[in-house]
Order: sequence, then structure tokens, then C-alpha cells
Amino acid sequence: MSIETPAATTASITINGDRLWQSLMQLAEIGAYDDAASGLTGINRQSLTDEDGDGRRLVIGWMKEAGLEVTVDQMGNIFGRREGTDPDASPVMAGSHIDTVATAGAFDGCLGVLGALEVIRSLNDAGLQTRRPIVIAAWTEEEGVRFGTDMLGSAVAAGRLTLDYAYDLTDKAGLRFGDELERIGFKGERSVRLEAPHAYVEAHIEQGPVLQQKGLTLGVVSGVQAISWQKVTLHGRAAHAGTTPTELRVDAGLAAAQIIVHVRAMVNSGRYGQLRATVGHVRTSPGLPSVVPDLAEITVDLRNPDDALMAEAEADLELFLAELPQTQPGLRVETKRMAKTTAVPFSDEIQDAIAAAADDLGHETIRLMSGAGHDAQEMAAITPTAMIFIRGQYDGISHNPREYSTPEDCTAGITVLAKTLQKLSA
Amino acid sequence: MSIETPAATTASITINGDRLWQSLMQLAEIGAYDDAASGLTGINRQSLTDEDGDGRRLVIGWMKEAGLEVTVDQMGNIFGRREGTDPDASPVMAGSHIDTVATAGAFDGCLGVLGALEVIRSLNDAGLQTRRPIVIAAWTEEEGVRFGTDMLGSAVAAGRLTLDYAYDLTDKAGLRFGDELERIGFKGERSVRLEAPHAYVEAHIEQGPVLQQKGLTLGVVSGVQAISWQKVTLHGRAAHAGTTPTELRVDAGLAAAQIIVHVRAMVNSGRYGQLRATVGHVRTSPGLPSVVPDLAEITVDLRNPDDALMAEAEADLELFLAELPQTQPGLRVETKRMAKTTAVPFSDEIQDAIAAAADDLGHETIRLMSGAGHDAQEMAAITPTAMIFIRGQYDGISHNPREYSTPEDCTAGITVLAKTLQKLSA
Repeated sequence: MSIETPAATTASITINGDRLWQSLMQLAEIGAYDDAASGLTGINRQSLTDEDGDGRRLVIGWMKEAGLEVTVDQMGNIFGRREGTDPDASPVMAGSHIDTVATAGAFDGCLGVLGALEVIRSLNDAGLQTRRPIVIAAWTEEEGVRFGTDMLGSAVAAGRLTLDYAYDLTDKAGLRFGDELERIGFKGERSVRLEAPHAYVEAHIEQGPVLQQKGLTLGVVSGVQAISWQKVTLHGRAAHAGTTPTELRVDAGLAAAQIIVHVRAMVNSGRYGQLRATVGHVRTSPGLPSVVPDLAEITVDLRNPDDALMAEAEADLELFLAELPQTQPGLRVETKRMAKTTAVPFSDEIQDAIAAAADDLGHETIRLMSGAGHDAQEMAAITPTAMIFIRGQYDGISHNPREYSTPEDCTAGITVLAKTLQKLSA
Repeated sequence: MSIETPAATTASITINGDRLWQSLMQLAEIGAYDDAASGLTGINRQSLTDEDGDGRRLVIGWMKEAGLEVTVDQMGNIFGRREGTDPDASPVMAGSHIDTVATAGAFDGCLGVLGALEVIRSLNDAGLQTRRPIVIAAWTEEEGVRFGTDMLGSAVAAGRLTLDYAYDLTDKAGLRFGDELERIGFKGERSVRLEAPHAYVEAHIEQGPVLQQKGLTLGVVSGVQAISWQKVTLHGRAAHAGTTPTELRVDAGLAAAQIIVHVRAMVNSGRYGQLRATVGHVRTSPGLPSVVPDLAEITVDLRNPDDALMAEAEADLELFLAELPQTQPGLRVETKRMAKTTAVPFSDEIQDAIAAAADDLGHETIRLMSGAGHDAQEMAAITPTAMIFIRGQYDGISHNPREYSTPEDCTAGITVLAKTLQKLSA
């Protein structure tokens, strides 16, 4: 794909940072609640709830005011199309999601959707046309907290999951996705299988500490890491801490600790590239100070931007677990895989377009991976895709009412989005 | 102390194993309940409950039937005295406790008291006199589960704790030890400060797996290990498992795991003699698979028969904890000591007397430490003391209705007790 840059369409537009911020704050009122833990206002606007319906209607209203042609597909994915001078050219798409987790802030997903909207509004203000159409996308059920599968709307649109699969998902109360979609009035007519756009760009908060730590506002995202979750259960033998000689023990807690230390050693060894390993959950039983634990459960979360190195890391762990009983004969090790996704690299050309746009606007950037999943990873299967990360305060805390990106940083990120979309739609 | 062995008093008596067993089973009916977890009958006869009162009256009745002079001291400790041919000689004492934990078996403590009773009954049957008197002791609140301090009755008798301290202890319901003692009618007249007997011998189930593992029935106990408990709390920083680089993490769960692995390494190094180390309790927070834990709590239980080596081990651990933040800057480590007792070695001469008696009777024995606390460790402060361990089935499980020693093993142990008491009282 070549990047054409006709002079007329790369006149740098400025975006209206105040208008962007006001839109974010207005959308944040829908599903707002008093969060006792933080003392702040949080947002609970989960997929296909009444609050989600209200949020969707608000955003559609803004899209129409901006002159966009709005369509809704069979998954409730919302598209707002701004025509280009060449109606046959495939569009450049930009978007994210407006559904939230139960204890959300105002920026996760919403910045990408309302940022794309602000680009459109600014192009309108400047009276600028693009050759290719520009389409905003707001994907359904990105978070996956209600119906159990994340990036649901974009995955069906890209053809990785089927409509029937999605419709039959149920929430904790047993309500069906398909029924709830209809209930809030968003079972659209448009066929869900998306014709591949020319490119897809998603602006999103980093949700991590790297940009803040490096003193940078923006990052160019090179892809989404492979993610692997397993639950490991260790079965030992309960015994009296005082009367049982060490050599006769089968200590499940010790085995769990050895695994935790080992996965960190795997990371530190450097043999597995940019592997990240986390044991977030540890539970031992019976949990009494003077009883050797006979049961321990841990979760092992591995991430790696390189699939081959991820496979080697998993093989290393598998071998370690198989050999563990040698140090404590009688130990039994059970594993259960809970999730596994392969790495999704983003398009070099779209990354370069973002980096060039940032550079033109005077912003230094770094390339970094996304540790979390995004709709962009689904889009990457059907079109050249990349993401812009915007710095988050407080180490990029997210899924928490303390989630916060400054107005200046949001403005910078969406200005780069604007220039990138201009370049790609020229 | 010299061991005299006049021929008349070392005629080997046999004990009545059936009578011993029946007494154990009859006492076990008091406080019996249906234990759902094991499907067996358990015993709940905690200190100074009505059930404890009933158990005391049953045993006192048996003592009187056996012709013993029964006294009860100010702590409710029960003594049954069999006169010797030399009324001025200090007595040989044998005993244990009949109070239980909430989920007990029939043998813990009871075997020592009813075993001593069976020795008396058998001496009576054989018409044998001893030079020194023999006194059975049944100590109050050995388990410590109701009023919070274990070996309470024997500790006050030995002068380590005061009567006022004991009387003012309260249970979870706020009831006072002194009041409950009076309520069940066991605030005795006899002064609690015990005149040192000539020797003290306690027969007890092992509550551990060593004798079973070695295929032996009996063990000679060389002392009680030093015991040290601490709670360690690690404070880290919660972070996203996917988006947070490893070098920016402060993982409290990893720190806890490093401690668990380290204390096992301390044991394996051999530098600390017969150190035993157990981390029975591990809890991490928030406990979510994709969040780096910001809090971890563990308990560290250390045991060592050698006080100097215990001190070195504790210093090693203290240094390790102090240095832990170097591997994860920002980590905060808190420790809180929960219990600490020094090692109590038993008398070599009493150990030898037990070993000789066992050998005379054809039983191979080993010397082993007690990993758990016993009334004997209190008696060791005022008189030459040792214990006989009797094998328990199922790895010596105790404090559990599955606790079980066979009739044959109980008989063997009490036969050795009999011969030992004969030797010491000669």
C-alpha cells in the first residue's frame, strides 16, 4: 500500500480539545455511580444495558449532527460514514468501544470513538474533504465482562466468530446477547460481515505506566501480545509443622512458591524475549500456621509479543511442572488452560503513518506493544491496522474510576489521529 | 541421680491391655459428636466445659477404685497418689491431660493419664509395692484452645505462670478461667505450687509419622523443640499483568514466594541443624489472574531442638527479609512475632531408663524430639523428665477424629511406662 499525500488534504487541521473533553465528560454521565472505594465517580455502562443504550443514542445523535450516515449492523456495531471525494474508494476506519467494565473511568474505549468523532467535526469545521471516506466504528461488547467474550462485536465483524455464537452467549442472569441487543433496539439491519476497509486506526489510553515513566505523551503500538492463562493446582499432604520431618513432607504451598519464582526467572533469563509472567492469585489450604498445606491453587498469566517465544516459554513451564514432583515425591500437579490468544502484529505502514504524523506535529513517540486486548487486534486480521496510545496518569491505572488522561494529552493524541487519518484517506 | 534396682520391684508386670482400651473408649464417649468431615466420631471435651467436668469425675472415680489418694489443686490439676514403702521419698510422677481440642480423637493426652492408671491397676493386681510413691497427674488446659495458653495447668504448677494470670484468662465468650473452674467444681484446695517430684514420665502418642515410617512402635523423646511463629506481610503495587513491564513491578506475591523458597533452602542447607520451617498460610490480594498482587500475607513457623541454631536461623531470615526490597525497590516488609518458646531438653537419665525398659521388654526404640508442646516440657523445669512416644496410624494424624493408635501399640507403650516407673520408684 502506498501512502499518497496530495497537498490539499494534509493541511494540518487542529482539533477542538475543549469540545473533545466535553463530549467525554458528557458520555461519562451515563452509567455514573459513586464509587466508595476511591471516593470518585465511576462508570458502569456494560454492554447492552439500558445505560449502554442511552450512550449509544447520545453518540449516534452526535454523529448525525456531524453529517455522518449512520448504520447499525446485526451485532449492534455502530458506523458513522463521512463521504470522500472518491465514493468507490474503500474507507479509512477509526474507532473503539463505548461499553465499559463495572468500575470504569471515562477514557477506556470512549477516547477512541469520541476522538474519531472530533476528527470528523474538525474536518467539517475546516471544510476539508478527503479522497477516501472516513468511517467511525463503535464496537459492541469489547470488554467481555457481561457476556464472557471480549472484542465480541469486532470479532464477528472480522469473521473470527459467528453471529450465532454471539447471539447465544448469556450473562450471569441467563439473559441472551441476541435478546438483549433487540431489547435495547440495536439489532441492526446492516450485514455484520465487514467489507475490509482500507486501513483501521484506533486511539486508546495506554492502560500502563510506560509513557508516563518515559515522560512521553504518545506511543505507536506495534501489536498486541499473545496471552496465555492457566490455573495450576498442587496437591500435597497435610501434616503437622512440628512433628513432621522435612523429608517426609509434600508441601503444596512450597511447590506453588517454586513455580512463582521459576516464572520470574524465565522472564529474567532473557531467553523468551519480552515475556511477562504474573501469578495474580494464590490460595493455600487449610491455611493454618502449623499445618503443611495439602492444596495450593495459582493462576499463571503469560504474555509475549512473539508467538514462537511464547511457545518456548510455555514448554519451559510445562517441563518445570512435570519435574516438580521429583523434589517432593507424592506431589500431584494439575493444570487447566483458561485462555490463549496468539500475538497480533500491527501493520508497519500504519505504524509509520502514525509516527510520521506525530513527528510532523512535534511529538516524540516510542513503539510499544499493547499488553491488553483491543478491537484493533480483530481488525488486523482483515485490514492494515495500528493503534495510538495516549499516556494515562497514575501509572496508567484503568478499569478503575481513577483512570485519567489529561485534556492536553487527549488533545495531542487525537490531533495525531486526525493527521494520520488525513494521510491515509488522501 | 542413681537408679537402684532391688530385685523385688523389677519383676516385670504385665498390664491389662483390654482394660486400658476399654477405659480409653469409655472416656472417649464423654464429649463425643458426629464429625461430618471424616464421617467418624470425634471428641470435643474442651477445658472446664461440662464435658470436661464429667471426664474428670469419671477418672477420679477410677483412681479411687484403684485405691489412690486423690487431691485437686487450685488449678484443677488432679493427682492420684499410691503410697510407697518409704513415705518420705519423693514420688515418681506420670501423667498427661484429658482436655481436648474441638475435633479430637481418643488418645491425645488421655493415653498418658489412663496409661498411668493402668500401671497402678496392674501393680495392684500383682500385689507389688514400690519404694517411692507413684502419683498420676491429669493437668488442666493442656491444649490451650479455650483460654489461649497451652500447658496452662502444668505451667502454673511448675511456677512459670502465676495463678492470677491463669484465673484471669478468658475464652471467646468472655468467661473467666477462674470462674469456670469453680463452676465445674474443680477449684481445689491443694496449693498449686508443686513440690518437685523425683522424676516425671509422660506417655503420649507421637502425633507425627516417624515411628510409622520406621516400622517402630515406640520412641524415647529427647526433648521439645524451640518454636517460633511470625506473620510476614508484604506490601507491593497493584498493576496490570499485560501492560506493566517487569522492571516496574513491585509484586508482593513474588516476594512471598521467595521467602517460602528461602526458608526451605535454610532447612536443606544443614547449617541450622534439625531446623523445620513451614509456611502454612498464604494469602494474596487482590487475587485476580491479571493483576500483580499488591499484598501478600504469610505465616512462618520455625522449629529447632537447639536454641543457638534457632537464633541463627531467625537471624538468617531477618537478614533475608531486610534485603528483599533490593530485588524489588518499593517493596515493604512487615513482621509480627506471634509465639516463641525455647527448646526444652529432657533428662538423659530418664531417657535412658525408658530405653532400658523398652529394651528389656524386647522393643527397639529410637530417640526423637517432640515437635509439639507437652506438659512434660513444663515439668522438665523442676524435675528430671522424659516422654515415651507411641506410634500413631495414618502418619500420626492428631487433632482429628482419625487419630488412632492400635491396642497393641498402646499396650506396648504402657508396658514400657510400667517398667520405667518401677525402675524409677525402686
